[in-house]
Amino acid sequence: MARDGKVRVGIIGSQFQADIHAAALQIMPDEAEAVAIASPTPGNAAALAKRFGIARVFTDYREMLKEKDIEEGEEMIEAAQSHGVLLMYGEELLFTPKYLKAKEMADAGAFGKIYLIKQSEKHFGPHSEWFWDVNRSGGGALMDLGCHGIAFCWWFLGRPAMTSIYCQMGTYVHSKKTRAEDNSLCIIEFADGAVALIENSWAHRGGMDDRIEIHGEDGVTYANLHMGNALTTYSENGYGYAVEKAPTTKGWAYPMFEELWNYGTPQELNHFARCARGRETPKITGEDGLAIMHALYAGYASAGAGRKIALPFAAPSLKKPIDLWLNARAGEMHTKANKSFDFQVEGGL
Amino acid sequence: MARDGKVRVGIIGSQFQADIHAAALQIMPDEAEAVAIASPTPGNAAALAKRFGIARVFTDYREMLKEKDIEEGEEMIEAAQSHGVLLMYGEELLFTPKYLKAKEMADAGAFGKIYLIKQSEKHFGPHSEWFWDVNRSGGGALMDLGCHGIAFCWWFLGRPAMTSIYCQMGTYVHSKKTRAEDNSLCIIEFADGAVALIENSWAHRGGMDDRIEIHGEDGVTYANLHMGNALTTYSENGYGYAVEKAPTTKGWAYPMFEELWNYGTPQELNHFARCARGRETPKITGEDGLAIMHALYAGYASAGAGRKIALPFAAPSLKKPIDLWLNARAGEMHTKANKSFDFQVEGGL
Amino acid sequence: MARDGKVRVGIIGSQFQADIHAAALQIMPDEAEAVAIASPTPGNAAALAKRFGIARVFTDYREMLKEKDIEEGEEMIEAAQSHGVLLMYGEELLFTPKYLKAKEMADAGAFGKIYLIKQSEKHFGPHSEWFWDVNRSGGGALMDLGCHGIAFCWWFLGRPAMTSIYCQMGTYVHSKKTRAEDNSLCIIEFADGAVALIENSWAHRGGMDDRIEIHGEDGVTYANLHMGNALTTYSENGYGYAVEKAPTTKGWAYPMFEELWNYGTPQELNHFARCARGRETPKITGEDGLAIMHALYAGYASAGAGRKIALPFAAPSLKKPIDLWLNARAGEMHTKANKSFDFQVEGGL
Amino acid sequence: MARDGKVRVGIIGSQFQADIHAAALQIMPDEAEAVAIASPTPGNAAALAKRFGIARVFTDYREMLKEKDIEEGEEMIEAAQSHGVLLMYGEELLFTPKYLKAKEMADAGAFGKIYLIKQSEKHFGPHSEWFWDVNRSGGGALMDLGCHGIAFCWWFLGRPAMTSIYCQMGTYVHSKKTRAEDNSLCIIEFADGAVALIENSWAHRGGMDDRIEIHGEDGVTYANLHMGNALTTYSENGYGYAVEKAPTTKGWAYPMFEELWNYGTPQELNHFARCARGRETPKITGEDGLAIMHALYAGYASAGAGRKIALPFAAPSLKKPIDLWLNARAGEMHTKANKSFDFQVEGGL
Repeated sequence: MARDGKVRVGIIGSQFQADIHAAALQIMPDEAEAVAIASPTPGNAAALAKRFGIARVFTDYREMLKEKDIEEGEEMIEAAQSHGVLLMYGEELLFTPKYLKAKEMADAGAFGKIYLIKQSEKHFGPHSEWFWDVNRSGGGALMDLGCHGIAFCWWFLGRPAMTSIYCQMGTYVHSKKTRAEDNSLCIIEFADGAVALIENSWAHRGGMDDRIEIHGEDGVTYANLHMGNALTTYSENGYGYAVEKAPTTKGWAYPMFEELWNYGTPQELNHFARCARGRETPKITGEDGLAIMHALYAGYASAGAGRKIALPFAAPSLKKPIDLWLNARAGEMHTKANKSFDFQVEGGL
Repeated sequence: MARDGKVRVGIIGSQFQADIHAAALQIMPDEAEAVAIASPTPGNAAALAKRFGIARVFTDYREMLKEKDIEEGEEMIEAAQSHGVLLMYGEELLFTPKYLKAKEMADAGAFGKIYLIKQSEKHFGPHSEWFWDVNRSGGGALMDLGCHGIAFCWWFLGRPAMTSIYCQMGTYVHSKKTRAEDNSLCIIEFADGAVALIENSWAHRGGMDDRIEIHGEDGVTYANLHMGNALTTYSENGYGYAVEKAPTTKGWAYPMFEELWNYGTPQELNHFARCARGRETPKITGEDGLAIMHALYAGYASAGAGRKIALPFAAPSLKKPIDLWLNARAGEMHTKANKSFDFQVEGGL
Repeated sequence: MARDGKVRVGIIGSQFQADIHAAALQIMPDEAEAVAIASPTPGNAAALAKRFGIARVFTDYREMLKEKDIEEGEEMIEAAQSHGVLLMYGEELLFTPKYLKAKEMADAGAFGKIYLIKQSEKHFGPHSEWFWDVNRSGGGALMDLGCHGIAFCWWFLGRPAMTSIYCQMGTYVHSKKTRAEDNSLCIIEFADGAVALIENSWAHRGGMDDRIEIHGEDGVTYANLHMGNALTTYSENGYGYAVEKAPTTKGWAYPMFEELWNYGTPQELNHFARCARGRETPKITGEDGLAIMHALYAGYASAGAGRKIALPFAAPSLKKPIDLWLNARAGEMHTKANKSFDFQVEGGL
Repeated sequence: MARDGKVRVGIIGSQFQADIHAAALQIMPDEAEAVAIASPTPGNAAALAKRFGIARVFTDYREMLKEKDIEEGEEMIEAAQSHGVLLMYGEELLFTPKYLKAKEMADAGAFGKIYLIKQSEKHFGPHSEWFWDVNRSGGGALMDLGCHGIAFCWWFLGRPAMTSIYCQMGTYVHSKKTRAEDNSLCIIEFADGAVALIENSWAHRGGMDDRIEIHGEDGVTYANLHMGNALTTYSENGYGYAVEKAPTTKGWAYPMFEELWNYGTPQELNHFARCARGRETPKITGEDGLAIMHALYAGYASAGAGRKIALPFAAPSLKKPIDLWLNARAGEMHTKANKSFDFQVEGGL
């Protein structure tokens, strides 16, 4: 694999995230570039390729991965492995510039010991239809969005062990089209004594909303990524685009500037490319991703059991995480008994 | 008891709350007036009486209550009883003008069905030393501040039955001077399917912070009582007073205007006076207060057990609510077993 | 005239301001009450009277003023005169609670010497049609709204002499229906060395906007009356009313709570009633109003001449203030000469 | 001159702006890199070079410009000339991402016709001592900061001719150390009927403040660059750095994230590098800079004369722009006559 020059990226997929990644690669073009795109839907990949000037188009991503000069695939992983890392894990919030400032201040001692960290991400539901089908998505708002909050809080605190998780969830607004939870509250306790509150929603009106709070013994900071950064704007006419998932641009709205850069997508891809070249060490790894996935399983188990679950948690062999909640809820409806469900839990509560 | 003229109020106590109430009675003087004040600390009552022009001073409140023309006492209760009410319960947040606007919009259908309601009240700890002693206070931030949030959310939603409570708490910042929790997260589920998130803190830096959020299927509103209403202000010199519990008025700060009116204290006292005269029906009663107190007990039990507790909850005969958490925590430290504590719970989870 | 009891107020008019004043009298009912209302439009006065429980209705306000027990009229003035005051002048901003906090901080030395004070009031045009006709209104946004800003800044600074005024104005958005200026920028210099910037608009979209800034050598404060205090709100359904002149309550909006109280209308009427009873001295008088009116004349003259005009300013005998600008503009269009118009100016520039 | 590869930049100077530019070149390294630095102060250039890994250091910038491989100098200008441009002009606000979003919305018709555009930049005075000496700086806050606002508003509106300027200024806070104006209000009228209000200050407490407002017949947007984007933060301990010219990081403050990127400095340098390579056309040129400088002269003349000055303005042969104001003020103090000063004005008022 090449050690020099730009990392040549092949994109799998052609919709929302593919678009974001192609755009992000253009914002910070010095380390990586998109050279191919694969999507099974006829025409989709070609359309995106045309828009971003991507040379090659595939309908079968396996064909694309055979190409010698495309590196996002086995070669990239191999390169990563040779640096002692199993797999990289993509967590944009670790690259969100506004949140990095909070981390910088925290590391400089601004807040003293942090006892509470909050992150929330909310909107009115996912872009693609398949998310609503729990058999395909495996879970709802917690699964889709909570993975970001868990990763972020854990990383922000310096990776102390997660000792327990408690989740409250429900299908409040979209019950006609999904069995997935569309709102969740999630409390994680850490070995260093801190606690995280992570809020996620597919039931939130008014456009995308992402924010954090850091509460320490000596201070506090509030960082609102969307309404905070936005230009407070009123328009009779509208103007095409305000922010991800905004319902309209007429009337009052909170248009965001340089959305991808403010999310941290180009910075994240830059980091990946540099990791692939061995110039940087991944901020977050596949193992980290696994720990987060286990916490998500425990979160659903917690929502089902109505109690906090100790971490680490050995997930039972279920087809999808959300079953830990859905099955318990179903049982609860049948028996109405005041019993907790038992789970195989490693370690004590 | 008189049916006409101003209600003649006798104040018991001479510190923070007594001061607020005397001041509030002057802001809305048409229904009630302070005519006497009682405090055991020599000089305190006299000082407050002088400042607010209150005629009579007592060191024994029982002496004050014997006075024929003072109505806050048995006569007022008797009058209330004769209107079919056992006791009135003082919950200022039901009179906070900014929050009333949220209620007005909600009742007008602005948000459709509400699925999540949030209220938080935070500062760096109570005014008086006795709060820190759990033997006198019975609990910490949840007890002191959470009662407001529970009452508010319940009332806002239209008094649906509370079906469960889950609390997470800890002594994060003030463990050297108290065993009480100085931060708590509290999740309450209601029979109508809504959920409340109530956050309380004695560990919050930067001055008093009180805010609500209302999330419904069709909309959302954010009302920040302190930093929201405040005049964003920078001063090299300071200016005496910014807001309750603000650490300083130098540098950037968020001074509040007409603090008592914005809290709703005079409006609340006005309502009480009118209730005493039979002109209004209490918005919240002694029975309501009892239900809230039971929820607080269940909250401590929940924090101790690490699981949500069904409501209504028959509190065990303990000296103080916080023991439900402290005893469990002590037990947990000794046994490290992964057991839940058993409580006498009415109804199923 | 009575010296005791509530001041019995007769309201002349039945639309926007009459409604506000009737409502305000109900908010603070301890000093004054509305007892009669007069309006030439058949039915209007009766409708308002019914809504607010006002006893008597007149179509000719002169008939109303003959009533012995109505005091807003000659008797009130007479009472005021006997206290050495010619006439009271109604300036609500002197009673706006949020702005009073700025004044309190300024008087406490928070900002040191103030060098710049800003006030702006903006919306999309007046309630009643007659405002658009300069022959009836005498001027546009500066006349309608600037009087508030001039009075406020002058009072805030402690009434230093106004030494000059410069105005820039134009008919930017509503030229099809009015010759009046719909946007104006106004700079006033004071004898104490401070300067005021007053912005007014009938061309501002998105609802009423009123704000101040105080800039001193030692600090600064920003007070935004509308969007600042508001509950940031998103609604799919709307909810009846957000704030004065808001275009809609659907989508994002900034609904205000207790609008009249936050403007200061009831407090102002309370003050008037107490002045009428001799219990308070007017904060601002008829003479003050005259000085402000002269400044407005000078403002129009300044806009016409393209230069700052020294104050005090002896207005030429013109039918309406706006002619000082309109005539100059007309002249300019005809001659295109680079001449300043001459005005009778007292004192030097 | 090279047509390919990165533009090799030599930096002249070693303090505030040199630091910003060296840092900005590292943020967007794909088009340009700093290869040398020149500063007459011994050690300064070397220290900066060390911090940013810049290879060569000079004490005489003329020596640096002789280097064959350094392009910021004659070669760059020559390259620019060969593309038909006399000189590039650096105006960061044309690259400020938040403000570019306002421009994008405006160009998409969000606000309809714009009638008022506001920009303000304020802080408590410049970094270097020489700014305070009008013989070296030629002017104060208007000269230092107003050039940005004039360029921005003009560019934003699409470069309509500026037809007049009116400035009000004074030395309000720093009169002990400077004769320069430390606060100015500036009104510019444009041929398309729009008006700009530009506020600048060296007397503003609380840290750097830069904001814009766009007011159109169909909408409005508010973009606050500093307090808007910032993380609202309280710290007992401080944390090193909040934002340019912030007085402290203790207490409440508004720390900015990725300050240089949010200002637009790296984007601006990227643009310059691409212009030098002939890949982009300068957004603003030396000729534009000249027009802005003439407007500044006219602004000082206007402040001296107390009237608006028609543009274009043929500046009299004075040593420094501020003399147009200082001389008039001196004259006014001597004569106290109500006369305007005469200037050679091209075109009619």
